[in-house]
Amino acid sequence: MSDFNPVRLIATKRDGEALAPSDLKDLVEAYTNGSVPDYQMSAFLMAAYINGLSDGEAAALTEAMLHSGTHIDLSDVPGIKVGKHSTGGVGDKVSPILVPVVASCGVPVAKLSGRGLGHTGGTLDKLESIPGFRTSLSVEEYRRQIEELGLVLAGQTGDVAPADKKIYALRDVTATVDSIPLIAASIMSKKLAEGNDALVLDVKCGRGAFMKTEPEARSLAETMTAIGARHDVPATAVLTNMDVPLGRTVGNWPEMVEVIECLRGEHTDTRLMMIVRALAGEMIALGGKAESASAGREQAQQALNSGAALERFRQFVEAQGGDPRLIDDPSARPDSDSIAVVRAPEGAKGYVDDLDALAIGHAAVGLGAGRRTKEEEVDPVAGLSDLKKPGDPIAPGEALAHLHTQSPEAVERAQEAVRDAYTFADTPPDRAAPVHARYSAEGWTQLG
Amino acid sequence: MSDFNPVRLIATKRDGEALAPSDLKDLVEAYTNGSVPDYQMSAFLMAAYINGLSDGEAAALTEAMLHSGTHIDLSDVPGIKVGKHSTGGVGDKVSPILVPVVASCGVPVAKLSGRGLGHTGGTLDKLESIPGFRTSLSVEEYRRQIEELGLVLAGQTGDVAPADKKIYALRDVTATVDSIPLIAASIMSKKLAEGNDALVLDVKCGRGAFMKTEPEARSLAETMTAIGARHDVPATAVLTNMDVPLGRTVGNWPEMVEVIECLRGEHTDTRLMMIVRALAGEMIALGGKAESASAGREQAQQALNSGAALERFRQFVEAQGGDPRLIDDPSARPDSDSIAVVRAPEGAKGYVDDLDALAIGHAAVGLGAGRRTKEEEVDPVAGLSDLKKPGDPIAPGEALAHLHTQSPEAVERAQEAVRDAYTFADTPPDRAAPVHARYSAEGWTQLG
Repeated sequence: MSDFNPVRLIATKRDGEALAPSDLKDLVEAYTNGSVPDYQMSAFLMAAYINGLSDGEAAALTEAMLHSGTHIDLSDVPGIKVGKHSTGGVGDKVSPILVPVVASCGVPVAKLSGRGLGHTGGTLDKLESIPGFRTSLSVEEYRRQIEELGLVLAGQTGDVAPADKKIYALRDVTATVDSIPLIAASIMSKKLAEGNDALVLDVKCGRGAFMKTEPEARSLAETMTAIGARHDVPATAVLTNMDVPLGRTVGNWPEMVEVIECLRGEHTDTRLMMIVRALAGEMIALGGKAESASAGREQAQQALNSGAALERFRQFVEAQGGDPRLIDDPSARPDSDSIAVVRAPEGAKGYVDDLDALAIGHAAVGLGAGRRTKEEEVDPVAGLSDLKKPGDPIAPGEALAHLHTQSPEAVERAQEAVRDAYTFADTPPDRAAPVHARYSAEGWTQLG
Repeated sequence: MSDFNPVRLIATKRDGEALAPSDLKDLVEAYTNGSVPDYQMSAFLMAAYINGLSDGEAAALTEAMLHSGTHIDLSDVPGIKVGKHSTGGVGDKVSPILVPVVASCGVPVAKLSGRGLGHTGGTLDKLESIPGFRTSLSVEEYRRQIEELGLVLAGQTGDVAPADKKIYALRDVTATVDSIPLIAASIMSKKLAEGNDALVLDVKCGRGAFMKTEPEARSLAETMTAIGARHDVPATAVLTNMDVPLGRTVGNWPEMVEVIECLRGEHTDTRLMMIVRALAGEMIALGGKAESASAGREQAQQALNSGAALERFRQFVEAQGGDPRLIDDPSARPDSDSIAVVRAPEGAKGYVDDLDALAIGHAAVGLGAGRRTKEEEVDPVAGLSDLKKPGDPIAPGEALAHLHTQSPEAVERAQEAVRDAYTFADTPPDRAAPVHARYSAEGWTQLG
């Protein structure tokens, strides 16, 4: 770092010019060790936000953040290991269904997940709603489980990308969060630490997602895929719809109940399961166990039909300390009763026309299912179940949703918010396809 | 400040939208009192650098910085008081000539000046090279002198624009210095604190100035004039050339010797005196003592011819504690001897074609006349004198400049740098006019 001059480097990005990978490496290192102060990093981040970063710069930033912490090496674990990431949505319970499906088809999946923040849920919170389930694994436990069981889903494992943590905290207070290359680098610095050989990225798009528009979602998909390619980790991105909550539950334990039902094969033709199959097909193909994504989709369906996926899920829950009896009888978990119902209003005739995912996400947080700040605790059983979805027939007074909460004072407000999140029509709506498009090294393919 | 949200405000400027004056006031207040940290201010400054500030925003920022400290009220002092500012150049000794000229024509001039930094000198350092001269006046002394003598030239007087000091220090380390609206707001927050009723701004343009190109200089002139107008302080900007050092001296005492010669009427037809007269004409007209700038120029020349300007200068030096005998015999000051000569090289035949102001500015700093950092002391007698200028006839071996320094080890390097700053030609060069244009409420007038 003999020639390292942070002011010159900030000025270069300020003027819209490209930085060398070594410049970004020096900057991230110096920021992480404290020799570059917050005020220089925030000036750089604002310049990067406004002027953008090339794919090469985003990859170099990712690499620098990745190498700031634990980078799990699974190269001696047999098989092509395939990771999965979702950019986050409302009712997004895809991972705990998808990962056992793919693992039971012979493709190992190692995954480090996050907690929920704001209106979107987090896989760790969902899994931890199973009593006893441990998400805090050592690197050794993580490695052993991927070898023995072919799947692992954990949170803090070693110190993953501490530079990203520090930079993210700074972005949060300097209005530099919503930058596609900065988001892509942040995600990929954590995904590349998992040790997988390939990645499938579920890029959610719509009012309940961080990417509200398809052009933004496509740009994020392209940037993340480009970063993967520069790290020799081929990635396929799948654009999926997030205008409406996924499935009929939102909240941690309510969603786990739906996960178990899905793994039992009770909800085959839903939009949720169409997304699970689409992602599973890509992962199984990337993992070399199917000729194509469509062949992979069929294998995934067979794993569901045969009970192999459910069995793998049961082993996974047991391996990480969860109570496997709940898989056979979810109603055995206490405190999961419905405590209030939201009823369709007088004018509700015909069909549910639309349901606003963002409003439902906020309602779930209000019931205790999510966090407004990182310090808040979540109530594992809080949330919504039995959600009516667009296209469902409806009559006035009929139940639109069941609310679960340990805060009875939150019920009235949630009832009103949920009712307002619905619209109704005389005829069933034309809905956007759940899976829009896929992107890989070969480019875009329109799917929906 | 109940709704004050710095992240929202940063995001607004990030997205290229305009901020309300109250937003900028809140931000500057919160930054000055420490409740907005450096890292948020630097993100804001970078957004403002890249996306710009409107004249209204620049004026609001100026106002906020102005009101962070002492704002001298001279409204009860009779007459239209006219201030003067130069954006800084090499050998820029205009102020100590101009201010007594204008004051002796009946227009009071109050001026807070700065110290030199980098390759440009500062008026305070120049005046302090007169033994005994005090630039640190109380607000009371400042007021009394403008009333009694019609001119005052001081440094720290009260706590002028502390917000600007704090913001400037942050800009310096976050690559956000070279922004026209930020420069304009910084200058004007200090100029409006002086208490004058109108302003003349000498905007220097060329390789020895901060504004290298005429479009940049014009933009700065327009922005500063717009800020003045929004504070009911009419301002006229004059664009002057700064490719070549002004006058034949660079350095504090060497320049004061030339100042005295100019006030004695020894250098009437020089480019330096053309600039002095142009600015004096504008100031005398703005001060209501001449019908027009051209009539003001004639009055200024008369004040020089009659000795009135020199007499006012003598009173001014005495009032601020300086030794007035040096005005009659500058050579009485010790340590001002030439200690080395730079000689024209073999190939130097015909005329001096060009002289690089920036190189000469750096050479003067090398001799001890300036500061590389704010903490450095200046050597009052160090610098260059007897500079040959473009158009001067030259022969090999002839003296190009005399060097003055108390660091003999600096001589050789300075000799080489000064020699390299010159070019020569067989015929005299066509030179750009010293005064390019003027800008006021009526718009631009081309002058040179």
